[in-house]
Amino acid sequence: MIRIGILGYGNLGRGVECAVRQNDDMELAAVFTRRDPADVKILTEGVPVCRIEDAEQWQDRIDVMILCGGSATDLPEQTPKFAEMFNVIDSFDTHARIPEHYANVDAAAKKSGKVGIISVGWDPGMFSLNRLYANAILPDGKDYTFWGKGVSQGHSDAIRRVEGVRDAKQYTIPVESALEAVRNGENPDLTTRQKHTRECFVVLEEGADAAKVEEEIKTMPNYFSDYDTTVHFISEDELKRDHSGIPHGGFVLRSGRTGWDGENSHLIEYSLKLDSNPEFTSSVLAAYARAAYRLSQEGVSGCRTVFDIAPAYLSAKSGEELRKTML
Amino acid sequence: MIRIGILGYGNLGRGVECAVRQNDDMELAAVFTRRDPADVKILTEGVPVCRIEDAEQWQDRIDVMILCGGSATDLPEQTPKFAEMFNVIDSFDTHARIPEHYANVDAAAKKSGKVGIISVGWDPGMFSLNRLYANAILPDGKDYTFWGKGVSQGHSDAIRRVEGVRDAKQYTIPVESALEAVRNGENPDLTTRQKHTRECFVVLEEGADAAKVEEEIKTMPNYFSDYDTTVHFISEDELKRDHSGIPHGGFVLRSGRTGWDGENSHLIEYSLKLDSNPEFTSSVLAAYARAAYRLSQEGVSGCRTVFDIAPAYLSAKSGEELRKTML
Repeated sequence: MIRIGILGYGNLGRGVECAVRQNDDMELAAVFTRRDPADVKILTEGVPVCRIEDAEQWQDRIDVMILCGGSATDLPEQTPKFAEMFNVIDSFDTHARIPEHYANVDAAAKKSGKVGIISVGWDPGMFSLNRLYANAILPDGKDYTFWGKGVSQGHSDAIRRVEGVRDAKQYTIPVESALEAVRNGENPDLTTRQKHTRECFVVLEEGADAAKVEEEIKTMPNYFSDYDTTVHFISEDELKRDHSGIPHGGFVLRSGRTGWDGENSHLIEYSLKLDSNPEFTSSVLAAYARAAYRLSQEGVSGCRTVFDIAPAYLSAKSGEELRKTML
Repeated sequence: MIRIGILGYGNLGRGVECAVRQNDDMELAAVFTRRDPADVKILTEGVPVCRIEDAEQWQDRIDVMILCGGSATDLPEQTPKFAEMFNVIDSFDTHARIPEHYANVDAAAKKSGKVGIISVGWDPGMFSLNRLYANAILPDGKDYTFWGKGVSQGHSDAIRRVEGVRDAKQYTIPVESALEAVRNGENPDLTTRQKHTRECFVVLEEGADAAKVEEEIKTMPNYFSDYDTTVHFISEDELKRDHSGIPHGGFVLRSGRTGWDGENSHLIEYSLKLDSNPEFTSSVLAAYARAAYRLSQEGVSGCRTVFDIAPAYLSAKSGEELRKTML
């Protein structure tokens, strides 16, 4: 049994807890939280909730620690720190800071002799893998990534900061005609506006000026001004009833040419349709926790990403079984 | 430069030749054929065409030999044999015989200290990879593979063996409504007939009985009797004009559930739309040739499949560059 620790018990931590339950070769050892453990109720019976400060006492009882904090401030600190004590996995998703994060985790993990796998999830993660495979197969081609339909936490938060807004949910939606143009091999050059639209569901504070709020959202730089944005005003009850899920997904496509004169076209498409963004990310984290455990058993140390890990490490099945049933 | 040898110069061999041209870190060293080399004209200028018997003299001048023969009789013999002299890659696609082929290639390659990568292409190959990743991520789920729309060589050959048939092309077509049911998360149980239809374009011999030919095709066991099959009779000119391509493709889907009580659904879908089946397969072979070369440089020996190879080995880019641009 691979003994899993969860550090941080929000949506992602709860998702990992559920994923561990689905994998017969894993068991949850403990959950670590910054909150008062007495206030944190988890789903698994008989598993302790501990203070984050007590984690170091668990080094002999945990094979892989899955870090479920945020990328902005938690993970840049936590992943290198805990890589000094545990094999670790995180879902660090600030694309621009990945090289720096990689270097920090690599240094810590090499020193401790542990394995650290960073940026695991679907983007970065499964989408990245599909970009790499497709690029290696079709060197002469063009990449496209579309996100959605799904909830963007960052954009929802940005709307909530607008004066007069009580609560909000924002959906990122890929433009169907742009997707179709890519699928048809037209290799279009697409602007930001042509790729995605943004749909916002907003609950106003009492007495707020709807027109003013809508204008402020639609013209918000970086977040909305480059997109066709729709704003719907709804009641708090409607928001709760119709928009409490965290769905997401998207499409990675590569269109490329082969032949002596590039006479043949090919399209590789990978897509995800997810009811729960955090639970799917958690499921990817659990699979890579298995890889971290096995690599560590083999004596590997240092930082890895999804690019560096042979697919067979993710599966509970033996190489023989995989070749027989899935190849 | 990775020096590539091509063994067998049919559609696949020609495809590899084109793929090598697209990869800046590869060069074609020689093509080996069972035919009289004087009769084989290749596309690349200045590259020798040699007799297959002369291959052993090329051991110092070829880094990876790509075997482009057929799975029925060529590869079971050739891959182990040439693994005694070269790093080899093949596209062995007789799923049921993979374990046996693996064992033979593994023994030969371990003895010679070479790397052999077998069953590389899209199915087996990229489709297998996607089945593995999706199963590891969503342990509670259901797999679906659909093929087409594309030309099935085996089914076209079967039609050609019918008395009264001069020439034929058969297309395998996925049933759109079945695909949609899977995409909608309905987890349908699908019979052979519900998944694919078969469309045949047939050129008759002069004086042949069309009704009899059609009946014989539609009732042919294994090949057509379990499918809804359509037969079109066309002229030789029409066949040449409209059906001379070798397109193919397909879909690998996994629908799965997460959450404490499986309350959330997810769909992972991978699809290919290929103008040229052999050229795409060749492009995958070229990418894995790079992996074979690198593994060999690292001192690895023995048989591998796509499951055993970390994605980064396929790309000409460095790990640093990959993390920066594709993660």
